[in-house]
Amino acid sequence: MQHKSFKGMICPIALSLDRVGEWWSILIIREAFYGAKKFDEFQKGLPDIAPNTLTRRLKRLVDADVFERHRYSDRPARYEYVLTQCGRDFYPVLWSLAIWGNKHFSPNGDIISLENLKTKKKAVPFLADKVTGKELLPSDYKVVAGPAADNELRRKIVNRDALAG
Amino acid sequence: MQHKSFKGMICPIALSLDRVGEWWSILIIREAFYGAKKFDEFQKGLPDIAPNTLTRRLKRLVDADVFERHRYSDRPARYEYVLTQCGRDFYPVLWSLAIWGNKHFSPNGDIISLENLKTKKKAVPFLADKVTGKELLPSDYKVVAGPAADNELRRKIVNRDALAG
Repeated sequence: MQHKSFKGMICPIALSLDRVGEWWSILIIREAFYGAKKFDEFQKGLPDIAPNTLTRRLKRLVDADVFERHRYSDRPARYEYVLTQCGRDFYPVLWSLAIWGNKHFSPNGDIISLENLKTKKKAVPFLADKVTGKELLPSDYKVVAGPAADNELRRKIVNRDALAG
Repeated sequence: MQHKSFKGMICPIALSLDRVGEWWSILIIREAFYGAKKFDEFQKGLPDIAPNTLTRRLKRLVDADVFERHRYSDRPARYEYVLTQCGRDFYPVLWSLAIWGNKHFSPNGDIISLENLKTKKKAVPFLADKVTGKELLPSDYKVVAGPAADNELRRKIVNRDALAG
């Protein structure tokens, strides 16, 4: 697939999508959280992916620092793909997508949910602000430029209702 | 672009990506949160997108119930694209991606962040569990099947370290 890279965009969402935004990539990361490490384990969890697509996506995710590739057999040479710290930090993105999908695209109720290992209670996951301890609602916040923003982005944030619903 | 649909997958992440997983779609939603409604406003925020791609993606996002299309001019017929409730609920996904990108792909610090309108303090957004009031860490939870899971998914969840880092 041909597409314009998002790498030059001064936006943390675009930079993330430049790494994982290709078709299948996020589901490959999902499989890693389900325990997949070897090529055929990823294939088993994603039976519809073409093997050459899986190969390309895994390589891309290694380049993006989401996976580390370890050789686990010499003859023949075989590799497994292990989540890096950066890859493990993707967990909240996966669950945000799961929450949205459960809510809007699964009319018969949740497909998966999370259970607390200690209390055995089902989690109610949501985006919170550590400072207030409350839910992070778009109506209570505005986007501000950080130290890595450029002037174009600063103008955009000033001129528009910034990322507020 | 040709790709296999994720629509038949029993997985809330796949169902979400089936709606918004195409290249550019999530950045189009980002622009809506920055205030874009009209075609040329989306174009202005995403100068590298080809107009026919933008047209196709907007149509797809209307079909996916992320945007509602309103006619704002009759001669010529012109439309604007307004986030639905489903689209507004995408906000935590956008911010999860922003957090991940700020942390891992922006070596000079945050590109954007959120400021609380009342307290003027910068937010520290994170994924929390409403039940415990604490951060939702993969090590403290396991994935369980919900009412809409099928048998294949139930087997997968039982057999693997489910979505735990």
